[in-house]
Amino acid sequence: MKLSLLAQAISLEFSGIDKEVTSFATLKEATSSQITFFDNPKLLTDLQNTKAGVVILSSAYQEYLPKTSQALISDNPHLSMAYASVYFAKKAFDTSSPAHISEKCFISPNVVIGSNSVVEEGTEIMPHVTIGANVKIGKNVKIFPNVVVYDDSIIKDNCIIQAGAIIGSDGFGYAHTKMGEHIKIYHSGNVILEEDVEVGSNTTIDRAVFGSTIIQKGTKIDNLVQIGHNCEIGQACILVAQTGISGSTKLGRNVIMGGQSATAGHLEIGDFATIAARGGVSKSIEGGKIYGGFPLTLQNEWLKTQAKLAKFFKKN
Amino acid sequence: MKLSLLAQAISLEFSGIDKEVTSFATLKEATSSQITFFDNPKLLTDLQNTKAGVVILSSAYQEYLPKTSQALISDNPHLSMAYASVYFAKKAFDTSSPAHISEKCFISPNVVIGSNSVVEEGTEIMPHVTIGANVKIGKNVKIFPNVVVYDDSIIKDNCIIQAGAIIGSDGFGYAHTKMGEHIKIYHSGNVILEEDVEVGSNTTIDRAVFGSTIIQKGTKIDNLVQIGHNCEIGQACILVAQTGISGSTKLGRNVIMGGQSATAGHLEIGDFATIAARGGVSKSIEGGKIYGGFPLTLQNEWLKTQAKLAKFFKKN
Amino acid sequence: MKLSLLAQAISLEFSGIDKEVTSFATLKEATSSQITFFDNPKLLTDLQNTKAGVVILSSAYQEYLPKTSQALISDNPHLSMAYASVYFAKKAFDTSSPAHISEKCFISPNVVIGSNSVVEEGTEIMPHVTIGANVKIGKNVKIFPNVVVYDDSIIKDNCIIQAGAIIGSDGFGYAHTKMGEHIKIYHSGNVILEEDVEVGSNTTIDRAVFGSTIIQKGTKIDNLVQIGHNCEIGQACILVAQTGISGSTKLGRNVIMGGQSATAGHLEIGDFATIAARGGVSKSIEGGKIYGGFPLTLQNEWLKTQAKLAKFFKKN
Repeated sequence: MKLSLLAQAISLEFSGIDKEVTSFATLKEATSSQITFFDNPKLLTDLQNTKAGVVILSSAYQEYLPKTSQALISDNPHLSMAYASVYFAKKAFDTSSPAHISEKCFISPNVVIGSNSVVEEGTEIMPHVTIGANVKIGKNVKIFPNVVVYDDSIIKDNCIIQAGAIIGSDGFGYAHTKMGEHIKIYHSGNVILEEDVEVGSNTTIDRAVFGSTIIQKGTKIDNLVQIGHNCEIGQACILVAQTGISGSTKLGRNVIMGGQSATAGHLEIGDFATIAARGGVSKSIEGGKIYGGFPLTLQNEWLKTQAKLAKFFKKN
Repeated sequence: MKLSLLAQAISLEFSGIDKEVTSFATLKEATSSQITFFDNPKLLTDLQNTKAGVVILSSAYQEYLPKTSQALISDNPHLSMAYASVYFAKKAFDTSSPAHISEKCFISPNVVIGSNSVVEEGTEIMPHVTIGANVKIGKNVKIFPNVVVYDDSIIKDNCIIQAGAIIGSDGFGYAHTKMGEHIKIYHSGNVILEEDVEVGSNTTIDRAVFGSTIIQKGTKIDNLVQIGHNCEIGQACILVAQTGISGSTKLGRNVIMGGQSATAGHLEIGDFATIAARGGVSKSIEGGKIYGGFPLTLQNEWLKTQAKLAKFFKKN
Repeated sequence: MKLSLLAQAISLEFSGIDKEVTSFATLKEATSSQITFFDNPKLLTDLQNTKAGVVILSSAYQEYLPKTSQALISDNPHLSMAYASVYFAKKAFDTSSPAHISEKCFISPNVVIGSNSVVEEGTEIMPHVTIGANVKIGKNVKIFPNVVVYDDSIIKDNCIIQAGAIIGSDGFGYAHTKMGEHIKIYHSGNVILEEDVEVGSNTTIDRAVFGSTIIQKGTKIDNLVQIGHNCEIGQACILVAQTGISGSTKLGRNVIMGGQSATAGHLEIGDFATIAARGGVSKSIEGGKIYGGFPLTLQNEWLKTQAKLAKFFKKN
């Protein structure tokens, strides 16, 4: 899309040399044909080093922009980015081109596989599965009926996806107008399931805004679990049923999340941490310990407190 | 169905002039060809003013029935209604008649659209979607793969429904016998998604017993959310993942429900209220405030109480 | 599979007379052509009485093995069982043989029914439903769109399964290596829904490792509920939305589980017990009472405690 047309479409002023803009990316990763935005002062160094062709930002920060980048000035760069994102949204689940399917696969009747997707040998795809475009599915993967895998997902060797799971749906991301409307941020990222991951039935894993939501090797996810956009789940984690992981949270390796546990967004959980059932993680925690309760504490402290509490208020 | 046959089928005595009964409705909305029931003394005025052709009620209230309505006397009108409801249940997902689909739509392969449903221009329906009968889908709607939209639903312009979401399944409504059996109340209502609503993957929205479950304009719903029958969700609300809204609850505009939060049924939440993650709403609350905890309180009070509690029981 | 080859495949030593091993079963139920494992000293009597052809166990217990059984010695029998289970896993959702479908059924377009499955008269199966192999579906069952029923499930008369529900997915069961890897236990059990059961939309019910996950007659399950492997849910229970029942837990009859409630695994809940919304059951409880809170207590005690607690910490 021509930058001049994009600027007009999202009601920003444009002056300068017009150019073609192909897609969105982060400050760090955008190249000269891409557009990005800046609204977080903590990322000032990223702004100063960006290789992006165009950056949406407020006038106060224009001086930090490299000369190789073109500015689009906005009072609310996050909102302008949301308005712009729809212009780079691809048609989803396109099937106009053929997929590349190994002859040594087992593809059931009533399966749809999108344009340019690759399915390697030994993989089995069961009825009523929908695979998007540009998806890569490795060897000896089992995809049970009625699973949906969105565009651009990568599913590595030996993964198992139980029925009804959704891999790569749009993350829950919006910018907000002064009038209280929510403007959708169209997601251009994807989901990567590394080798030996199992995903339970009707679990949902959202793709990243930019970049990837990653589930590392050997992690096992139970039924009805929610994993938000841009999460990174370490290797060999265990996520028990109905757990919810909010966006951009990182789990180390061998983390265990008990049933109906949850985390807030943008936090880190260390290697070998265990969160007991119903535990609610609202800030980053170190690994190797067993936590529980909400607000979160060490599980044995939570148990002690609850026991004392019940006794105390029976008397008082 | 003939009233005499219906009465016999549900083991109620019938005397009077026989008539054709076409369907069920509420006391307020039923017309002369419809049947309804009365078992809530608070609705006595509705009974006195009903235009229903037939009312199932206990003999104690027969005197309040208008002369235009015929009585069916029952010791347990709610249970009799449940027994009767199956006789008015339509065959679901009928495909015997054609749908009316704009030529300017994008309908993927492997899509089923039921009898007399309408799909307007610019709308995209992806593989393995099942649309029931008499559904109305507006302009520029995106329905991702493996979504199910039950009969009679209305999806207005620009809505987005992520993969695996279920719109319009039967609400969880039963009447109970003395022996502890649960008798299904067949739901005749629908779901309405107003303009610009987004529904997350594998979210479920039940249709109303009578009337409509309504999601107002611009509301955004995350993954794995449950919305019960007859709820009304105001405009521009945000419902984060794994939230549960029980039946007949009303949210005002711009209400935010945090992750894994929930409400009991038949209550109201005022405009611009925020419920923090895990908050459990068990009675009606006014708008404009931030609530949390379970039992619910103001969020900052909950945080203070939890902090004090942990300290107190460490010492005592 | 030849025992000698199986032993080699899972890196256990084998000496003795070779034999054909057909499948896995429990100590109690295995027959002379089956293999089982022993690692729980509480089941020593079962070991002494087993009719299994082969038992994987540690050398310490070999002396208790009947002479009719062959030993496979392992330092970690549970892990060895997990490694072996994949060799007995059948190809899922096989459609190579025809199903047996009554002429008096209503099978929608775009339905897949697996090999040797039986569908009896009056039953209705809606679009994009996937039924596995060797499934038995009784009379007058309604299966709404996009439901998945795994191999070997039994769905008895008059059941209703709302859209997107998953019946019989693999339970969340793994053995663990010293290196922290999780080795999948392939499940060979099934799910049985007795007569008049209703299952809500996008609910998931896992099949048993061995034997059956059972939902007894007349039980009603709401949307987005999770039921783990080997659970037994008594008759006429009510499970409200987003409830989670962990593996091997038994509910008596007419148990009510409120919204977002949950249980740990391997426990029992007595007849006519009610668990209020959000109640978390972590040990066995007797019937006939109303419980709530987490840790669980009697609901009215929980309410009193919470009320006192709020008051106390406002002052102190």
